[in-house]
Amino acid sequence: MPQREATYTPLPVAITTGEPAGIGPELTLMLAESGELPPHSVSVGDITLLAERAKRLGLKVELVACQPGEPLPQGPGVLPVWPVALNAPCLPGVLNPANAACVIATLALAVRACQNGHAAAITTAPLHKGVIIDGGFASFTGHTEWLRDACGVDEVVMMLATDSALHAQAPGWLGAADLRVALVTTHLPLRAVADAITPERLTRISHILASDLSRQFGIPKPRIAVCGLNPHAGEDGHLGREELDIITPTLEALRAQGVDLRGPYPADTLFTPRHLAEVDAVLAMYHDQGLAVLKYAGFGNAANITLGLPLVRTSVDHGTALDLAGTGKASPASLAVAIRLARRLADQCAATCTTSYL
Amino acid sequence: MPQREATYTPLPVAITTGEPAGIGPELTLMLAESGELPPHSVSVGDITLLAERAKRLGLKVELVACQPGEPLPQGPGVLPVWPVALNAPCLPGVLNPANAACVIATLALAVRACQNGHAAAITTAPLHKGVIIDGGFASFTGHTEWLRDACGVDEVVMMLATDSALHAQAPGWLGAADLRVALVTTHLPLRAVADAITPERLTRISHILASDLSRQFGIPKPRIAVCGLNPHAGEDGHLGREELDIITPTLEALRAQGVDLRGPYPADTLFTPRHLAEVDAVLAMYHDQGLAVLKYAGFGNAANITLGLPLVRTSVDHGTALDLAGTGKASPASLAVAIRLARRLADQCAATCTTSYL
Repeated sequence: MPQREATYTPLPVAITTGEPAGIGPELTLMLAESGELPPHSVSVGDITLLAERAKRLGLKVELVACQPGEPLPQGPGVLPVWPVALNAPCLPGVLNPANAACVIATLALAVRACQNGHAAAITTAPLHKGVIIDGGFASFTGHTEWLRDACGVDEVVMMLATDSALHAQAPGWLGAADLRVALVTTHLPLRAVADAITPERLTRISHILASDLSRQFGIPKPRIAVCGLNPHAGEDGHLGREELDIITPTLEALRAQGVDLRGPYPADTLFTPRHLAEVDAVLAMYHDQGLAVLKYAGFGNAANITLGLPLVRTSVDHGTALDLAGTGKASPASLAVAIRLARRLADQCAATCTTSYL
Repeated sequence: MPQREATYTPLPVAITTGEPAGIGPELTLMLAESGELPPHSVSVGDITLLAERAKRLGLKVELVACQPGEPLPQGPGVLPVWPVALNAPCLPGVLNPANAACVIATLALAVRACQNGHAAAITTAPLHKGVIIDGGFASFTGHTEWLRDACGVDEVVMMLATDSALHAQAPGWLGAADLRVALVTTHLPLRAVADAITPERLTRISHILASDLSRQFGIPKPRIAVCGLNPHAGEDGHLGREELDIITPTLEALRAQGVDLRGPYPADTLFTPRHLAEVDAVLAMYHDQGLAVLKYAGFGNAANITLGLPLVRTSVDHGTALDLAGTGKASPASLAVAIRLARRLADQCAATCTTSYL
């Protein structure tokens, strides 16, 4: 367990480069050159790859290798790197399964650094699921699930938040234009969603959401608005019975335990100022119900947060953009948001958490 | 068939009062008093009800009864009324099944006026489905379906549009902040949605949408972005096969017929400026996928449009608000949007249509 000094020195946010042939490496470099990279950030990836990409794009960044636990070099234009070597050279836009293990190794290194008290949080640049599977990780389904298993927890919650949350004051950073949307189900075919809404899942997700809004966001008593599953939240059973049979009784049981869950509300009218002003987050039942509006409100200025892990993890809200890799045309805005959010969540946790990591 | 004169005199927009115990009657009165009611508008409802509600709220409106086909009285503070008497007195907020038939009668009168060339469009204030059913219309499922049957068509399309569409210039009124969202399925339980996405339905809906974007909105070659059904539009079959098996082949067949349909796109990233700037409308597969973002973007400034009818029909995007009825606290903004949109669509049709009604 890291000792907390009288003078608080923040632990680093570890930024994995993600798919080396994608835009992840250059986005980190762009932030380092422009001065937008928050202090106490470190890139986790191949230093040769980063040097090549910087040269290709004419980015003046000083890459300095170091190891977890060592003091981070700081300064204008400096990008500290915890090195993880690629197995094969990488060209922008060209996937290579030979490097899949290296992508996974960056994640493993970042998790270990958090566990050993050498990092405060992980921000992940996008990876390419297909090439990881092709590279020998047949059961790989995504960053989030990998981190869940690596941390030995049973369930995590996917939440997206728009940027202005970062500028407002705790408790409850939610300004007029802000949105935080968590999901009960994530990457399921639509026809499988209804059966996946069970009292057990809804209970677990609600507890994680409420707990991490307190622990990571510093909101003492988080208020959560819950969407119905069906249009008009089922309209008293005329448009589906899940609200009557599953969602409402589960929310009532959770409220009796002190969790401030409101609803279920019709999703099409919940995302309006009158309702949003009264809550700290929205819990949507499925992917497109919650994320279409979140990304409309904050695309390019939103970040993905994984709740329920014993560490802070944020990520961008976009993909690898292989067609843009190496061109410098991709925007680092979402990565900047994700890193700033990770920094803020980590500092909040450092102030309030007493567990060994986190 | 009405003769078109050298000097074009617009036909009226008929505004039904909807549920008499709801906010519909007072919203129309508020617009008439404030001068926001567009010229050539006529209320369809009980004149005593309107007079009582005006008195209760201190609204200075001169109610003038007239009949379809007669010239409309005009002037500041004048509200022309095509009278449809209630069966029973009405108190704000108190539903009475005895008046259900009168609510239906306002709709019938408005449709007949359109068919006889005495009205150009219908704008409907909200009604209360339950009290209509209780009043003896057991199979009543809503305004839209009633109008569909009254007009003798097989299928209609529900579309919502935000307000700024009204101010931009044709062709393609879609400004940066505008949204038009049409739905393939509407008021279905979520678990029934996937099976309802058939090639036949998608084909019918797409044809109606494209045709009425031309006919009513004056867009010669409408461009339509189509959402996938599943998250990430199925991600090549990993998250559901409907895109591969049904949606993509259907869109290809329609494109071969000259319908400009794009996608299917992931719904969570489609509603972003880059995509929206290139299309005239979005076609969502189901209610909450399209309407959460539409109402976030334009709540209180959005209107509902029924496409596929042989007449123009718009409506508000809110309900009867029985708790607000008679208080004057409800906002007439959405009704104003719906009426202005009806006026504009009707004028567009008058300029381009050659059928007997519409």
